[in-house]
Amino acid sequence: MTSPFVPGPALRIAGAPGGPLAGLTFAAKDLFDVAGRPTGGGNPDWARQHPVPTRHAWAVQRLLDAGATLIGKTVTDEVSLGLLGENAFDGTPLNPKAPDRVPGGSSSGSASAVAQGLCDAALGTDTGGSVRVPASFCGLYGIRPTHGRLDLTGMMPQAPSSDTTGWFARDAATFARVSEVMLGEPVAASLPTRLVVAADAFGFADAETAAALVPMVRRLSALVKEVREDLLAPPGLSVWARAQRTLQPYEAWLTFKDWIDRDNPRFAFSVARNLISGSAIPESERQWATMMRAEARARLAWLLPPGTVLCMPTTPFPAPPKGLPLATLEPLRARIVCLTSHGGLGGVPQVSLPGAHVDGLPVGLSILGARGSDAALVAVAKAMVT
Amino acid sequence: MTSPFVPGPALRIAGAPGGPLAGLTFAAKDLFDVAGRPTGGGNPDWARQHPVPTRHAWAVQRLLDAGATLIGKTVTDEVSLGLLGENAFDGTPLNPKAPDRVPGGSSSGSASAVAQGLCDAALGTDTGGSVRVPASFCGLYGIRPTHGRLDLTGMMPQAPSSDTTGWFARDAATFARVSEVMLGEPVAASLPTRLVVAADAFGFADAETAAALVPMVRRLSALVKEVREDLLAPPGLSVWARAQRTLQPYEAWLTFKDWIDRDNPRFAFSVARNLISGSAIPESERQWATMMRAEARARLAWLLPPGTVLCMPTTPFPAPPKGLPLATLEPLRARIVCLTSHGGLGGVPQVSLPGAHVDGLPVGLSILGARGSDAALVAVAKAMVT
Repeated sequence: MTSPFVPGPALRIAGAPGGPLAGLTFAAKDLFDVAGRPTGGGNPDWARQHPVPTRHAWAVQRLLDAGATLIGKTVTDEVSLGLLGENAFDGTPLNPKAPDRVPGGSSSGSASAVAQGLCDAALGTDTGGSVRVPASFCGLYGIRPTHGRLDLTGMMPQAPSSDTTGWFARDAATFARVSEVMLGEPVAASLPTRLVVAADAFGFADAETAAALVPMVRRLSALVKEVREDLLAPPGLSVWARAQRTLQPYEAWLTFKDWIDRDNPRFAFSVARNLISGSAIPESERQWATMMRAEARARLAWLLPPGTVLCMPTTPFPAPPKGLPLATLEPLRARIVCLTSHGGLGGVPQVSLPGAHVDGLPVGLSILGARGSDAALVAVAKAMVT
Repeated sequence: MTSPFVPGPALRIAGAPGGPLAGLTFAAKDLFDVAGRPTGGGNPDWARQHPVPTRHAWAVQRLLDAGATLIGKTVTDEVSLGLLGENAFDGTPLNPKAPDRVPGGSSSGSASAVAQGLCDAALGTDTGGSVRVPASFCGLYGIRPTHGRLDLTGMMPQAPSSDTTGWFARDAATFARVSEVMLGEPVAASLPTRLVVAADAFGFADAETAAALVPMVRRLSALVKEVREDLLAPPGLSVWARAQRTLQPYEAWLTFKDWIDRDNPRFAFSVARNLISGSAIPESERQWATMMRAEARARLAWLLPPGTVLCMPTTPFPAPPKGLPLATLEPLRARIVCLTSHGGLGGVPQVSLPGAHVDGLPVGLSILGARGSDAALVAVAKAMVT
């Protein structure tokens, strides 16, 4: 079974003594700079062309300053393009909850390491779903914070208008401790009072997955005063997904094209295809997608006023088997994106909660709130288990 | 400097005693099966999915039976898609005539090994120029035989309607010995009597390259009774190239798509892009290209009646520097194809002759004849040096 950690000499950087995260260990996706270590980005030709960082990424430094100890850098899908967690160069980190299944990606090694108990928490990145999907598949707490809230210095970019730093933990208490440090804000004292159940998202998920999440939705409903059903994406989840799949790959192409031109790097076929598709997106499509993004933001602002939380399945199904052919994987990936694209499009915070299973395989329930309501979502995560 | 041989245990298979090639050594491009060795095809994920061959390829067996000793398998551009000889996984075999330049590809290791004197001859393949280009860049004799003439059993295909088995040698005598065995025909006793100088091809080459080839054209002219100028491709060398760049990548896609779908193999970005372009070629373009191929064949049949040989620069310039960025390489590659596409389109035999230099860098003069006139071209190659 492939290690969730990238190859290299053993890594251990002790956290500052006496901080709020003292005693905790963490790992960082290999998109975050760790001083003196190459940042690999999941691709064999990235580090060769980029200098070894001399400073830790902001997120790494933040956790070290708070007392957590860094114990490794983790495998990622190539240049963070991928949602399944199969890296053709580094292998597929173990999903301990489903050993014959993918861990989800692109923060695959971070999710795997936490799920295996090799560390208490781990940093990931989420542009199009890269924390939320592995959190769902590995049965973890995972957050995609409000876009633009955290300092992304020292984090390898992919599509900056969607890029975020997220994190994983196995239990709500650890998740809350890490979140308070990362967000620089205590877990909210009061809970949201209104719950919106995203009818389109539950309808889009596999029936077994939607059914498996019902008990969690019931527990969530019991925490609020008012519950109603509504549509997350009136134009269609697939229309929002199309907009995100227009904006994100084009931005990713802009991010990587100079490197690609200079270095002709090696990629798995599917990753090269993703980048090439991004390079070929016409201006007219991007203009449309930009308008759809503006509409999506307006929809989310209307749907999620302060004090309201929305719930939906994090993924439409649990982790698929490892090693599926591309022709089978592509439609699965497309369906996952229909349930994740609102994150990159709208920039709202989202937490994936563990607790449901389909045939023994974990699947997550997600809660979303208004921009800036991250600490309230963490409060809900804690309240769900107490 | 990268070895021209693929990694693996030392290889030496002695030729049959007393054959016409006794005493000669040869290498085979890693597209040819050698019993008991994986056929790598220049890609790290090809051999894993394909069984180790139990029989030698026809071409390998042919040379062994004639007494030549096999001493290695050679590096190739990935799945033979490439004309420069830079393999992102295996490195760039040395061009000993121009150490800071590419060797040419895709039969890069075979050309490098012969040019370095590591063996007397080497097998390559030529679909779109993969023997002719490295022969030109490394200053070697190289042949692309008449399409369909040789048995391709045990040779990894790329685009079957253009694929051929070719070979390299450093000197005309060895080239003729190997050619007689491979062709199963003695070198022709009489020489062609008419020479066509391809005015469009000389005009398309860099001026320095065209000028450097003039002395060779004069020697060639002295061997025949009649010399005239004519156009190789009246519709335009670039129009023929477009037809070949439509048919060949589409066929290559058909050849590799099942493997790609099953295995999501790793490729250099440029190779994946080539395959993806092939997958996207519309039916209408292929129909046009098929008609242009029929016209090209008619043109070549008219231009090259028995007893006529045509000459042209093998490549429009000598070997470019190693490690150029893609944006610089692509136009160079496109220009090379304008001088090589007649081979895949028309199926006529072609021999590249060494002997000219631009600023100390080798560049080849090519001679072409009617389909089946391979032995006559070899006779011209011999006559040029006596």
